[in-house]
Parts: sequence; structure tokens; C-alpha cells
Amino acid sequence: MEGVDHLAHERNKSEFDVDAMKIVWAGSPHAFDVSDRISKLVASDPGFRKDNRSTLSRKELFKNTLRKAAYAWKTIVDLRLSEEEAAKLRFYVDEPAFTDLHWGMFIPAIKGQGTEEQQQKWLPLAYKMQIIGCYAQTELGHGSNVQGLETTATFDSQTDEFIIHSPTLTSSKYLSLLLASVMTWKGSPVPFLFLSQSGFYNSCFHCSVQWWPGGLGKVATHAIAYARLIVGGREHGVHGFIVQLRSLEDHSPLLGITVGDIGMKFGNGAYNTMDNGVLQFDHVRIPRNQMLMRVSQVTCEGKYKQSDVPRQLVYGTMVYVRQTIVADASCALSRAVCIATRYSAVRRQFGSQNGGPETQVIDYKTQQSRLFPLLASAYAFRFIGEWLKWLYADVTQRLQANDFSTLPEAHACTAGLKSLTTTATADGIEECRKLCGGHGYLCSSGLPELFAVYVPACTYEGDNTVLLLQVARFLMKTVSQLGSRLSSKKPVGTIAYMTRVEHLMQCRCGVQRGFAELSADLVEAAVAHCQLIVVSKFIEKLQQEIPGKGVKQQLEVLCNIYALFLLHKHQGDFLSTGCITPKHAALANDELRSLYSQVRPNAIALVDAFNYTDHYLGSILGCYDGNVYPKLYEAAWKDPLNESVVPDGYHLYIRPLLKQEIRTARL
Amino acid sequence: MEGVDHLAHERNKSEFDVDAMKIVWAGSPHAFDVSDRISKLVASDPGFRKDNRSTLSRKELFKNTLRKAAYAWKTIVDLRLSEEEAAKLRFYVDEPAFTDLHWGMFIPAIKGQGTEEQQQKWLPLAYKMQIIGCYAQTELGHGSNVQGLETTATFDSQTDEFIIHSPTLTSSKYLSLLLASVMTWKGSPVPFLFLSQSGFYNSCFHCSVQWWPGGLGKVATHAIAYARLIVGGREHGVHGFIVQLRSLEDHSPLLGITVGDIGMKFGNGAYNTMDNGVLQFDHVRIPRNQMLMRVSQVTCEGKYKQSDVPRQLVYGTMVYVRQTIVADASCALSRAVCIATRYSAVRRQFGSQNGGPETQVIDYKTQQSRLFPLLASAYAFRFIGEWLKWLYADVTQRLQANDFSTLPEAHACTAGLKSLTTTATADGIEECRKLCGGHGYLCSSGLPELFAVYVPACTYEGDNTVLLLQVARFLMKTVSQLGSRLSSKKPVGTIAYMTRVEHLMQCRCGVQRGFAELSADLVEAAVAHCQLIVVSKFIEKLQQEIPGKGVKQQLEVLCNIYALFLLHKHQGDFLSTGCITPKHAALANDELRSLYSQVRPNAIALVDAFNYTDHYLGSILGCYDGNVYPKLYEAAWKDPLNESVVPDGYHLYIRPLLKQEIRTARL
Repeated sequence: MEGVDHLAHERNKSEFDVDAMKIVWAGSPHAFDVSDRISKLVASDPGFRKDNRSTLSRKELFKNTLRKAAYAWKTIVDLRLSEEEAAKLRFYVDEPAFTDLHWGMFIPAIKGQGTEEQQQKWLPLAYKMQIIGCYAQTELGHGSNVQGLETTATFDSQTDEFIIHSPTLTSSKYLSLLLASVMTWKGSPVPFLFLSQSGFYNSCFHCSVQWWPGGLGKVATHAIAYARLIVGGREHGVHGFIVQLRSLEDHSPLLGITVGDIGMKFGNGAYNTMDNGVLQFDHVRIPRNQMLMRVSQVTCEGKYKQSDVPRQLVYGTMVYVRQTIVADASCALSRAVCIATRYSAVRRQFGSQNGGPETQVIDYKTQQSRLFPLLASAYAFRFIGEWLKWLYADVTQRLQANDFSTLPEAHACTAGLKSLTTTATADGIEECRKLCGGHGYLCSSGLPELFAVYVPACTYEGDNTVLLLQVARFLMKTVSQLGSRLSSKKPVGTIAYMTRVEHLMQCRCGVQRGFAELSADLVEAAVAHCQLIVVSKFIEKLQQEIPGKGVKQQLEVLCNIYALFLLHKHQGDFLSTGCITPKHAALANDELRSLYSQVRPNAIALVDAFNYTDHYLGSILGCYDGNVYPKLYEAAWKDPLNESVVPDGYHLYIRPLLKQEIRTARL
Repeated sequence: MEGVDHLAHERNKSEFDVDAMKIVWAGSPHAFDVSDRISKLVASDPGFRKDNRSTLSRKELFKNTLRKAAYAWKTIVDLRLSEEEAAKLRFYVDEPAFTDLHWGMFIPAIKGQGTEEQQQKWLPLAYKMQIIGCYAQTELGHGSNVQGLETTATFDSQTDEFIIHSPTLTSSKYLSLLLASVMTWKGSPVPFLFLSQSGFYNSCFHCSVQWWPGGLGKVATHAIAYARLIVGGREHGVHGFIVQLRSLEDHSPLLGITVGDIGMKFGNGAYNTMDNGVLQFDHVRIPRNQMLMRVSQVTCEGKYKQSDVPRQLVYGTMVYVRQTIVADASCALSRAVCIATRYSAVRRQFGSQNGGPETQVIDYKTQQSRLFPLLASAYAFRFIGEWLKWLYADVTQRLQANDFSTLPEAHACTAGLKSLTTTATADGIEECRKLCGGHGYLCSSGLPELFAVYVPACTYEGDNTVLLLQVARFLMKTVSQLGSRLSSKKPVGTIAYMTRVEHLMQCRCGVQRGFAELSADLVEAAVAHCQLIVVSKFIEKLQQEIPGKGVKQQLEVLCNIYALFLLHKHQGDFLSTGCITPKHAALANDELRSLYSQVRPNAIALVDAFNYTDHYLGSILGCYDGNVYPKLYEAAWKDPLNESVVPDGYHLYIRPLLKQEIRTARL
């Protein structure tokens, strides 16, 4: 049946120039060209095959990832790929690996926080992968709260070294006291209270081991490790250090280093290709010049001092990392939407008349009302990601000119949009899985793995709720300064609208409770603020010239769906503040329905515009030609359980049941 | 550290009698006793160990499940457990297996649809597990739409047999036509249009193979298979047939049967312990008396006739199955809530003052506003499950007396509540996972597997959206009959409130569009109706006498949280219909915050009342004693990747990178 396109009739319905939309989605003709070329290169190379992932055991899976990472590097070297092409290749290989942290965190951290000298020493080694780095900033008992880390880096001026150490109660001077008090009070609440009042509980057994860093468990030779700096008995907060973990000769952990993998994670392939690690330091010594000293330094005499490099640079790095996460959100969501949209056009259920074909699932309004807002979100997130890239460039330029004025707003923006887009994407992938019915539950649909591999984005680089609270705090601060005549600060950028809200300035706040008490509501306000940014930037995008027949019209429809869907979802907020009347809400809902009908004939073409290969999609349900059922049928027979007709265990565990011999069976 | 209870201070805070609440949760002292006894029996038997599931390969995993199923049966036989105890044992073994379908679908189907004679023949075999059955009602191309099944059962009066067959295009007379038309039109939409207009597309390659039935893939010896009955060239719709699949001697598939497993599903343990199967019939012959003939019969002369047993009995079975699904929802949700609540009390982040302990995460209002509504939902679903059990008993009694008057309402009720509770539970488990921060992503938290194993409940036994549309249709019908003077039907049970809504009766409907057009909105209405049922029944429960100090007060707080949380979430609907004012909405929100503070000191005790063993919870984060971090640390080292310090693949794939020998490496 090769060559048959079961979705050709859908593609013929579309009312716009798909090739032009592909350029819009990619961002530029150049970006399209690179993506298109590299994705096809990866798809056509059997060395990057990934359809067998879900049946491998953890060890096989991990070894296969090591092979792919090496093979990817070989391909990059052999084909002399540019930096941009190499990054795209790693992206389309589509498997979490230690290289993500090496390129995405280790190298940027040295660039951002290392001195010129440190960069000259370490970056060439890292660029050639003569060392492999990871980024260790989370402890077992301390995830979000970096300032609460317990690992210490104590300066020893005698040897000009730092001593990196993970304190545990077992090694503490309080051990005997603890054992004496706790063990004798079994089951009683007293020891706990005693412990917590005396502050011991903070430092639980093993709480201070590093936990989670990707690439740490089995591969990385070096880490950027964060620790409390102690110089001359005084603490100076948390700083980063370059620490070698493993021998470059035989890969064995160095003296004082205990390191391993933290075990299985969500999904069967998913992030289990990554060696997230646990790391315990036992008085590990490193030279003084391996503290990252761009912002603050320790001299050989044991003096701690700040350089003239502004601390705010650190926030610039956070803006960078989070901006890339927003861009990734649109990739993951669009992938799920592509699968669900294509399969909704293939799948038919009910509605057969006179023995004719059943109705395509995509024609049901209930399906459209769940799927099309996600399609619109994928485009919205794509454009907000593009805008954040611009914002980062703008902030960087300003920072270089010592202009910090836009940094708080840029920081709030990226934090909030990271939270909003990753939450919506994780939920959206799962919704797409449900929209595929039962078959979405099969690994061969690609959606279970996509969900499992994506959801950590809601937690890493800032827990989504914690980030929204930061945005809320920023909004409250902005509003409070509006009212003050003493403040000369004017809200800029995405919060400029606040100056137009005159009644806010005239308000006297009647709130009787603190921030923490109202935090659940403030989080909702922060989400609303971020949604406003997404909608505004989508509208701004549409004010630009966009070439290609019908392309802008399609985007207008999607933008309207995105906005009106939000209005429908949050109509309570709009109604209770008197922004709209119930009549408006009903009209908006009518309009939404009509917009869904306008998207319908273009749905397949709108997901084709993502230009994803079948390899990247990794989904039988989402395959380009829509030839779903024969492929599902064939794929089933590849499961290891089908290697034999009668299953392993029949004689031991099934036959004794059937033959009523269970009482004497060996089990 | 054994014997230390890190949550003792929390348990001491509680303001109610936990033991009394345990009885309320279990439903009765007897139910509590059975659950308590059997869950501890399973937890203490190493034969039922389940903490190693996530690292096993598919074949090992499946074989281990076969062993457990046999071991469970041996335990049941050895200990002479009652039917109730045996069912509880299977429940606490907590691993999907072929036995679920044997006991839960195969046997009930024979009981419900088989004649007296058929029951006498087949049930004793099934009860002793001399045969193992499954339930085959879904085809690859037909999930929800049972009436659209393509498998045929053609009566052959010569041999007094049915011929069961899965038609495929390959075997159809249209094959040559198809090949001629499709293959020559590569890529063009014409052949598809031609195909779909001529109705061929409905019958795709392999679309009619049975697909999904649990236990079918590798274990079941028999199936209840559904097929279109054809007698004397005439079709009589879909009926059930008992078909033997495998030899009882050597387990090999019988002539004409192609059967296997459909492959990996979501999660790494999860439902991969189940052999969901694919099954193709090639003219398989079965005796006439293996059609389930309680409701309709085929005589040896080839006459099709209805018995005097009312068809409505089938709906009674559906009410039964869905009612058990609602009961399971409260189990799954309460389990996730128990894990998240305990870990939220153990985990501390931020807020340390003067070096004291950080704040318990459960004290953050953002955490409470997400967690406590789920705690309330777990209780709400428990009580609605109990009420549905009563409803099923009531309907059954009435059916036996030929009273069908309450059946449509009972059917709508269970369909709607199945949809509502399973959707909320799946979302709630994932929310609980996120509430545990990064560590919730570890398999050792139990939550990823709980989610993956639970989500199919949103699809099986009626897709949740399809079910809501059924409820919506029922509501529309009820409303339309209210207006009609001709109708003598009065709304009963859960829809009785409609008679009180006088303005509904006076309404003249101004709707210009059909049901399908408005279906997305009707689904929202159906959810609202079902939520009303949940809230009403929770309130009714509280009008009963409930013994135990403070127990009723706690339940009142939870009931109010459940109701007010819904009001907050759907305030748009309440505001737009004028049921509440914005002022009311704000007051409700204030009240909600105050209720969260009332739950806080009782939170741990409220999840202790579920009386779950650590074995059943299967979660380090949720362990009873709260000793989380040492257990996480120890568990990590058991991952297969940690069997060696230097990973498999180092010499082949890591060293060549570090040594710059990648160009010559064998990859």
C-alpha cells in the first residue's frame, strides 16, 4: 500500500499555503531549511531508530542511549555540522541524554559564571567532549530552595583548596545526642518536636546528598556543584564549583565521591535514558581556582570579595534557560496535537448511515472543542517563544550597557510564561492522548512516552507554582508603586497596561491579610497576567506582514480561538469584575463554535505545517499517511510476549490452575 | 531508626476519632474488618511483593504476574477464603491480571446473558478456574461503537453451528477492485473518496480483529466474543458467544484462531502486567448452544426469536459494572491523596527563620488549595460509590418485579458518575504527583505507576465524553417532557429537582441548532448535573447519624470544601445565570480559605482513616512513618544501573568520546 495517502482528501480541503505556513512556524526560511534537512537526516539513519525503546530493560535502554549519543557526536564530526545544525541534530534524536546537561547547563554555567581564565581553561575541553559535565544544584531534601542547600565548600588556606562536603547527621557531632534522644522515645512525638525545635530536622540523614542532576549518575566526569561557601569560619552563601567526579582514565569515582543513579522514573522509555544521579561528597578537595569566580572571589589569603561584574547577570542566564523551555513547550504540544489531529481524521465512530462510513471523529463538536484550542495554543506558544528570544537578546544588550531597568519585568515574564506554557503543555499532551481513545494508551501511539518525558518541565528550572508566586509578588509590587507618589518608576513592557488602569492608582487597598494567606488567589492573578501577554503577543504577530495565501487568515482564526477559549474558561473572572456581561459570554461562546468550523477543513494542513517527520513524531496514530490500523496490527507482533505462542510461565503458573493442581504447585 | 514516627506530631494534632472514621470509610465494621485483615495478610507475604515491578522487562514482568495470580489462587484455596475475602485479596494484590476479566467480566456475562442451562454448564468450570475466560467486545477499528462491530457469527443449520469470522479486505471480494483502483491512483484523493463513498473504508485491513480484551493475549482459554448474528442471510445485530480459543491440553490456539498480545502500554509496570490481546477469527465453528441465549435465541431450524426476559437486564449489568468503577475511583484517588498529604507534611521548603526548620509544604496555602479539594473529593466519591451500590440493588429489585421506571435515570446516573469520578481521579492523581515536587516523578513515589494504571478507566466501559453525551441526551429529554402536557412522566430520583424548576417548564426553547452542534456545551451541563448528585448525596450522608468523636464535623468540613471548590471553579456558570452575585463568589472563596485552615491539623489523620498498608500504597513518599529520605536513598541503589560502578557501554561509547577516538569507534 506504499504511496497511498489516507489523508489526501483532508489535505486537499485546506484553504491556505502550507509551505508558507511552514516558514512562519519555523521562524524563517533559514530555520526551516536547517530543521527540514537535519530532521530528515536523523529520520533516515537507522542508527537513530527509536521505535524499540519501550520494550528494553533499563540497562539495555541506557546502553542504547550511550550508543546514540556517541553516534550523534560522530555524525556531527563526520559531517562537519555547524553549532546550529549540531543542536538541531541532538533535538531530533529525541532522547534525553547526558549530553543535554553537558551542552545545556555545564557549558553555559562556565560561560556565565566563570572568569576569562576559567573559560579559557575549561571550555575547549568541554567543547571537544574531553570532559563531560553535569550541573548539581539540587539536594535530596532541597529542590526549589537553592539558598537552603547544605553541601559546604570550606576554604583551606594552608593548601589553597576548597573542601567540598555533604554533611549528614551520621557524621555530625549531634549523632550520639540524636540516638540517645530519639531511640528511647519510640513512637512518641517528643523527639520530633525536640529535633525540629533545635533545628536538627533540617539536616536529616542523607538530605544533603546531591539528587536528580542529569548525567551525574553514570557518565559525567565533572560537575558544577553548588555549595555554601565557608571562608575563615564565615558563611558567604551558595556558590558554584567545578569538581571532577570520575577518573579520566578508567571512569572510576575519585576519592571521597559516592555516586550512582537514582532509579526508575515515570514511563518506560521517557527519562529513563537519563542517568539522574545521587552524589555524596566526603571532604573532597579541589584547587581554589575551581570556584566559579566571575561575580565573587576568594583570594589565596582567604579574602572573600565581589568583582565589579553585576550579580544581575545570573538572572540573565535564568531568562535564557527558561526562554528555551518555552520554545520546547510549543514543540511538545504541537507534536501531541499533530498526532491527535491526524488520528481524529482517520478514526471513525458512530453515525453510519445506510451502511456508509461512520463519522470522522474530528467532525464531532465535542472533539473540536477540546482539540482546536490546543492547536491554537501550540501556535500561540510558538510565537511567545519567539518573542521571548527577542526579549532575552534585548535584556542581554541592556545588561552589557549596565541598564538593569527591564530585568525584573523580563524575569517575571519568563518565569510566568515558563510556568504557564509547561503546565498547559503537560495537560495538553494528556488531553491529546485521551482524544485518541483507547489506542492513545498504547506506547505505539507515542503519547504516553511524550507525556512522561515532558512533565518534568513543570518542576525543573523552577517549580511552576513557586514561579507564579514570584510573578504575583512582582505584580503586587508594581501595583503598590503605582499608588505611591514618591516612586518615579513607571511600569514597562508587559506591565505597561497597569498605568492605564487609573482606578488601580486611586485604590486604597482594603486587604487585611498577608500575601501568604491570599497566595492561592494571587497565583490565579499571575496566570491571568501571563495569559494577557500570550494573547497580546499573538495579536502583535498578526499586525506584521505575513506572506502566503490564506496564512494570516488561518492565524487570525487560531488567535481568536485562543483568546475566546480563555474567556470561556475563565468567564467567572470576567463576569465577577464586570468586564463582560452574561450576554457577552454567550456571544463569545457562539463565536467560538463558528471558529471551530472554520478551522475544521484546515486542521490537517495546520499540523502538517509543523513539518514533523514520522520518526520525530514516533507515533503510529500520527503517521503522515494516516495508514494507522495495518501499522498498529503489525507493530503488535513485535512485542517480546509474542516471541512464543505459549507464554513463559504456562507450565508453572497457568496449567496448574486449569488442571486443579494448584495446592501442590511450586510457586 | 525503626519505631520512630516522623508524623506522630501530626497525628497528635487531630481533632477526631480516627478509628471511628475508618469504619465510616470502610462502610461498616464488617467491611473494615475484612479489608484490614486481608490487606495485612497480603502486605506481610513476600509472595506478593511489588516494589521491584518497574525494573523488570516485559517478559519478566508478565511471568511474575502469572506467578502472583497462581499464588493468590493458592492462598485463597489454602485459607478457604470466602468470596468476599477472595475479591479483597485480589484487590490488595494490586496488579492488573487476566483474573480481573475472568471474575469481573466473563463470569458476570454468563450469569447475566446465559440461560439457566448455559450457567449450569459453564459457571462451575469458571468458578474452579478449569477454564479461564475473557471478554472480547472491541475491535481495532471499533471501540465505543459496539453496534458497529464487524465480526460475524453466521448460523449453519446443516451442522447446527455458528461460524465466527473477522472479515478483512484481504479476504473480501472487493480486493481486486480495491487494488486496481487504489494502487494506480497513488497519492491522489480520488480513490479514498471513491472508497468512502462506496462504504469500503469502514472495513479497513484488520479493522475487524478483536483488539484490547484483557487476558486474551496469552492466557484465556475461552472468550465471550461479540459478533453480528447472521441467520438465513439476515442480520440480527450484535450478540455474545462463548468461544474456546486455546487447547486445554497444551494451550496452543485452536484452528482458525490467531491470537497475541497488542504490545506495551503507558507506564513501565502499570497495565503491562495484563495481556491485552489481538484476536482474528478465520471461520471458527462453535456449537449453536454457545450463543448466550437468555434474551434472544436461535433455534436449530434457524429461527431467531426473543425470549420473554426483558432486554433491559443488559442495562442492569452496565449499571453494576460502572458502579464498581466509581467505587474504584475513590480507592485510587484516596491513595494518591494519602501519599501527597503525608509527603507534604514531611517535606520542608523555604521559610527557615534563624536557622530553624523550613516550613512544612502542607502549610502553604497554594498547596492546601490544590490538595484539600482532592482530599474532599476522595471522601465524596467514596460516599457516592456507596450510594450507587444501593441504587444498583434498588434497580435490580425493581427489574425483577418488571418495574423499568427508574432504569433510565439509574443508567444516566451511573454513566455520568463513572465519567465524572474517573476523569477527576485521573487528573487528581497527576495533581498529587505534581504536589510532591520532583520526587513525585520517581517510580518509588508510586504515583507515576498509579496514574498509568488508572487512566484507562476514563476510556474503558464507555468513553467519558460519550457517556456525558448520553447523560445530556437524557437531561434534554427530561426537560422537553416537562413542557409537554401530554407526558405523564414525572422526573424521579436525581432528576426530581427539575419539577421544582418552574421557569424551565414555562420556557419556550429558542434554540435554533441541533444537539450535535451544541454538544460541547451540553457536556458541561451534564457534568454540572452529576456534580449536583455528588454534592446532594454527600449532604444526605451527613444527615445520618455518624458515631465517633468529631467524625461528623470533619466530614461536614470536607463536604463544604467539595461544594465551595466547585462553586469557585465554575463561578462563571453561577454568575452568568444569576444564581450568585460577585459578592457571593468572593464570600465563598473566603469561606473556602477558612475551611482549609480547619482541615490542616486533621489532614494526616484524615488520610490515615483510609487504613492503607505501606504495601498497598507502594510509595516511599507516602510511607506511614514519614521516614522518607533514608528510604529514597536506599532504594536508589537497587536500580540495575547501579550493579556496576562503571556502566556497561563505557568502553564502547564513553571512552572514545573522552579520548577523541570517536571517528574510528565502532558504533
